[in-house]
This record gives sequence, C-alpha cells and structure tokens, in this order.
Amino acid sequence: MNLKPQRCALPSGFKASGISAHIKKSSKPDIALLYSERACVASGMFTENKVKAAPVEFCIDALRLSNKARAVVINSGNANCMTGLKGKKDAIATSKLVAKALGIAESEVLVSSTGIIGRLLPMEKIKAAIPALISGLSISSLKNAAEAIMTTDTFPKFVSRKVKIGAKTVTLSGIAKGAGMIAPNMKPFKHATMLAYILTDAAITAQATEKCLKAAVEPTFNAITIDGCMSTNDTVIIMANGAAGNKLIKTSGEDFEIFSSAVKSICLELAKLIVKDAEGATKFIEIEVGGAKNSVEAKHLAMSVAGSNLFKCAMFGSDPNWGRIAAALGSVPSSLDWQKMDIKLNGKPVFKKGRPVVVKDKGLLKGPVVKVKVSLNQGRHSACAYTSDLSYEYVRINAEYN
Amino acid sequence: MNLKPQRCALPSGFKASGISAHIKKSSKPDIALLYSERACVASGMFTENKVKAAPVEFCIDALRLSNKARAVVINSGNANCMTGLKGKKDAIATSKLVAKALGIAESEVLVSSTGIIGRLLPMEKIKAAIPALISGLSISSLKNAAEAIMTTDTFPKFVSRKVKIGAKTVTLSGIAKGAGMIAPNMKPFKHATMLAYILTDAAITAQATEKCLKAAVEPTFNAITIDGCMSTNDTVIIMANGAAGNKLIKTSGEDFEIFSSAVKSICLELAKLIVKDAEGATKFIEIEVGGAKNSVEAKHLAMSVAGSNLFKCAMFGSDPNWGRIAAALGSVPSSLDWQKMDIKLNGKPVFKKGRPVVVKDKGLLKGPVVKVKVSLNQGRHSACAYTSDLSYEYVRINAEYN
Repeated sequence: MNLKPQRCALPSGFKASGISAHIKKSSKPDIALLYSERACVASGMFTENKVKAAPVEFCIDALRLSNKARAVVINSGNANCMTGLKGKKDAIATSKLVAKALGIAESEVLVSSTGIIGRLLPMEKIKAAIPALISGLSISSLKNAAEAIMTTDTFPKFVSRKVKIGAKTVTLSGIAKGAGMIAPNMKPFKHATMLAYILTDAAITAQATEKCLKAAVEPTFNAITIDGCMSTNDTVIIMANGAAGNKLIKTSGEDFEIFSSAVKSICLELAKLIVKDAEGATKFIEIEVGGAKNSVEAKHLAMSVAGSNLFKCAMFGSDPNWGRIAAALGSVPSSLDWQKMDIKLNGKPVFKKGRPVVVKDKGLLKGPVVKVKVSLNQGRHSACAYTSDLSYEYVRINAEYN
Repeated sequence: MNLKPQRCALPSGFKASGISAHIKKSSKPDIALLYSERACVASGMFTENKVKAAPVEFCIDALRLSNKARAVVINSGNANCMTGLKGKKDAIATSKLVAKALGIAESEVLVSSTGIIGRLLPMEKIKAAIPALISGLSISSLKNAAEAIMTTDTFPKFVSRKVKIGAKTVTLSGIAKGAGMIAPNMKPFKHATMLAYILTDAAITAQATEKCLKAAVEPTFNAITIDGCMSTNDTVIIMANGAAGNKLIKTSGEDFEIFSSAVKSICLELAKLIVKDAEGATKFIEIEVGGAKNSVEAKHLAMSVAGSNLFKCAMFGSDPNWGRIAAALGSVPSSLDWQKMDIKLNGKPVFKKGRPVVVKDKGLLKGPVVKVKVSLNQGRHSACAYTSDLSYEYVRINAEYN
C-alpha cells in the first residue's frame, strides 16, 4: 500500500534533523534528532516486554527522575537490545554526546533505537555523525527525521494538528515508524518496535501530558497488530514546550479535553499509518466489535480477529471466509453467543443471528480497505482493532531480514 | 516435509473404513468409520472455543450421558459448524443412520466433522455413502480411515504401540489429522481442527481412560501450534474394548502407569506428525524451555516462541535470529531475566548469560529439524512446544482455501 501523508509542520520552538550515520548497510538515513529550543515537559510509554532494550530502560529511568526532556536522538538499524552493560553505557554515552553538542543538560536528552536485536551500537559512527545531525536541525526537517527512523517502513509517517486553546493556536506534530514486530502493549514507564514522538508547543503540565498519553495509546497504538509480536523497543514520547503561550493546560477542564482529543487523533492517524505500511500488507483492515457487555471484552475480541493468521491470509486472498472470524472470536473467553451474533464485511451482512448469509458480490473484498463489523447484540460497548493482511511479502521480508 | 509413518495395525475387535462420499469436490476419501465389534468405554476432549461445531456439542452431550461408545463416524470437507439447529439435527441424523446400519444403539455412535465453517452437511451424500462405508470395514483399513479424515494434510497419520499389561499384550492405535487452524486447547468435555482417535483393546475403566487422556493431551496436542488459531472442531477420543483380556486397568497402579505412558507416547507421535505436516511447513521445530520456576510458566514461554510469526519466518529463512526468540519470551509475563538466560539452536549456544555468541556455522538451521533450547537458570522445571516454520506456501494455502 502506498498512502503518504501530506502535512509536515513543526510546532513553534522545535527543530528536527535526520541523516545517515552509516549504521544501516544501505546508507539510508538512520539517525534522527528532535530538539526544542525551550525547556519541555515530557512523558513516555514503553513496551511491556520483559526483554527491554537499553534505550527503553534509559528513558524509563530518565523520565522517572524528571519529566523534563527537550531532545530525543533516535537511531534505526540497530535496536541496542540484549547488549548488556555495554549497551546501557552506549545509550548513556549517546545522550551525553548529544547533550554536550547541543549545550543542554545530559538529563534532557532521551534516546531510542530500532533495528536488529543483539548487536552493539557502532558508537564511533554515531559519534562521528553528531555534528552533521545537529547542523541539520531545522524547522522544516520533520520529514527527514521521520525518514531516518524507518526500518522496513516504505514511507515516512508524520502528521500534524492545530487546535485552539483559548485564543491561542496550539500545534501538535507526530512522527512514527512501524512495519513489523508490531503488537504494542505499552504502559506508562513500562513497554514497542513501533516508535512515535509527539511534539507540541502547548503550555501544559507533565501530569496532563501523561494523562493524555495514557488515554490516547490504548485505543490507538495498543489497538494495532501486524504480526502479534510484541517488541523490545516500543516507545511513545510526548514533549511540550509551551511556546504557543496558551493558558497552562492542567489535568481537567475544557482545554484539557480539546488537547487530549488532538493527541488521540494524532496517535490514531499514526497508528493507522503504521498498519497501512505493515510489512507486505496489501490491505488495511479495521475490525469493530460492538454490542459487547464491556469495552475491555470488545477490544479483546477485536484484537483476537486482528491476530488470526488464517483470517489475515483469507483477507490477502480477498476471501469472505467469515468462519475464520468466528473461530477467532470464539477462541477468547467472553460472553459471546454466536447464535445471536451478526457479522458484516464492508457493510454487507455475511452472518446474521445464527445464520450464514450468502455472499454474491465476488468483488466484496478486492479493494485495499476491509471493514469487519461484528455485533454481539449483548450490550452497548464497542472497540476497534486495526491490522493488515498476511502476504507472501511479509514472509519474504522476515525470512530474509538478517 | 514428507515423513510418513510406517506402522498400521488395529487392536483386536476393531475395524475401520474410509471412502469418498463426494463431500469434497476432489472426490478424495472424505468419510471414515471406526468401529468396535465389542462394547467399549470411551472418553473425549474437545475444543475450548466458544464457537463449537455441532458434532463437538453432540459428542460432549453423548459422553456426558454415557461413556460407552463403540463407533465414530468422521467426515472431512465440511465442519458442520455455525450451522444452527439444522446442523445439530444433521449430526444426530448421521449418528442414527450409522447406528441403524451397524445394528447398534444410537447412543454408541459418535460423530466428528472437519472442513469449511458455515455450510450445511450434504446429508443425501452422507446417507448414500453409509452402505459402502460399512461394507468397507476391515481390520486392515486404519490407513484408509486416516486418509479420509485429511483436509489440507499431505499424508495420513497413524501410529501403533504394543505394551504388556500383566501377561497380556495390549495394542493401542491412533489416527489424527491436522495441517491448519492448529492451536488446540482442549479440556475434558470442552474444547481442536485437529482430530485424533485412539483405539485400544485394553480392558480399562472409563475413569481410567479419562485420566490418561487428560494427562496425555496437555504436553502433546495442547503443546503444538501451527498458526495460533484455535479451531471450533478439535477433538480427541479414546475407545477401549477390553478384547486383550488383561486384568482391568483402574485409575492407579503399575498397569495404569504403563498404559498411560503408552497413550502419551501415541499422542506425542501423532501431535508431532501433525506439526511435520503443517500447512506449508519446511521445518519441524521443537522449543524446550528449561530451568523455569514451574512447568506452567515453562510451557507458556515455549508456546510464546512457537506462536511468533517473526520467529517462524526466520526459521523459514534458516536465519539464527535469536532476538526474535528473546522478544517472544519477553512478551509473556514471567520470572524471565534475560541476563541469566541461555539459548541454544541445534545444540550451538547463540546467547549465553546475557551475551550474544557469534554464530559461525552458516548452515546451522538449513536442515528440516530445528531444536531451540532455552535455559532460564531460575529453577528446575521444563516444558516443550512444537511448531513449524511460516512459509509462502502457508499463505498460499490459506489465501486460496475457499
């Protein structure tokens, strides 16, 4: 699929850069820097994986100590994961080198990595790239940064929103990468290799950024799955520098709601872009489970369908094999009663109240978007999950990755 | 893979048959009958899926009422699942027709189905096939029955064991089918589409057959996964007719242990044959997790690796990408400490006590069998899981299935 976002703007006071440090053999861009000229508050959510990469542990520790960070340096091509004490030292050294070159405090520079597991970072290459990385900083380089964090991604992912907070216009911009090992389950200070960074010039407290991020991640990044494989490096970070001059946003009130909904909207768009660029994907699939007794059950059921290899292969074949949807729904403990259930594919009923409906439209699933709608008819709650089909190309990419 | 079992014997007093009822378009064999000339005790375990096929519900009910069953009729090509009241009636009618033709009680005939979900059984074809099915019964036709239950399987699966119970020789024979939608989670009277039938001439109580089956299924059929997709039809049934004339085996004692271990051995061999014939598989993969604090955790960790698409694609590519093993292990809540962990691939260390070991042998994983050994170094418990690689062919089969 080839769905490129159009917008590309940085909030006031932010600059970005993305260049090649030759970490990747291909010499494609592989190191990015996001930087605020002003002090920032920052919050993060990280992978729940018991095996956490060194930069994830570094960020968790840094954000626990202080929720002030005004730069994040991100490399692709190497995950700096399972690299032991040396890996930890390399994460710290990267932060120090960038802090020194920017002339800011060491505690203000976060680090992220994505790529292969179990190899030491090429520190000499990173060190050598820092001057060019910093001189590349500009207010128009968000796309460069989005490109430099790509691994098997086929296009850079960046989105932007403007909202009114009082009389002031606040800008939020986000970048993300995804493609494979995507089944995030992120908790505050815990668990992705999806990486996402949201920058904003809003004036907001750290407590409020953390609250928005928690609320935004569950129905967005935590509602996508490409291959069911939870990464060791999943990271979402939000940084807010106050340059918009709005009245300080706290953890409640109308301003908070407006801002929070903008964060959720950015996260949802980035999450969908990750799925649209899933490894080998030919289709974007949305699964909505409604009529559930509660939203946790609805989400669990939607994610079970999104995670079914058989369903995903059927989608690759444009085959309306709803039996695989039903089998995936049934594999989850729930209050599901299939005899009361309805299933629609792209708006057409295929199963209605315990009976199959004959599908005559041979082209029903031929397009690049599939919408699965399951109605349990048991309650009023609903949830969505987003996934891709499972194709030959996914297998090729992951058989030949290393 | 192409690993055909050699042995093919029926225990005393049993006959089998397998023919075509033209349920499959291909006109390949698609209906099987297993029959004991003598009264039998029987126990079963079935899928935990909330969506259960009509024949699964039929068997659960029948075995709850009585643990005496001396025949089972099995069709492939149609799962008789999500077929509503008509589906239930068709399961009952199939049992009645076969009972009448065999001249035995209706309550003594179990039914199983495997194939596509959501289509009514072609009852006229089944009815028309019954005379030939019964006239085909013979003591040398176990292979025919094993062939008739195949769906995407490429070879029939049957194994046999002889054990001494006192002075008497007891024979156990089993058949199974698998290939896709394989992630069984079977409980007694609950939950596969893997189907397996174990026939024995042992004299044994129904309580004892149930106890052996429970003990045998967890480390065997419930330890395999091909695609993580739990079926609506998974079924394992054991039938014992006492023709060997041994002293009655009860739920404990040396005889029980000997018999129980033979049942486990048959289940393990059938389970491995299912994995060896997994849809599109080029490799058989065994994952052993040892040094765990308890065996439940060890099993959970082993199954997480077995279920990782990324790991399975790497295996297809013969790529010793142990980072994907580590990421899969870490995605499960456990007492795992990766810095204490060792990983071996086909006997060669690739990760040892927190450090990667450079793998020089480029051909390490080129063969058809891969053994992954993880040592947590946290305790004394272990468990195994069995899976296949994820190949282009798996995707092709399941994109073109319908």
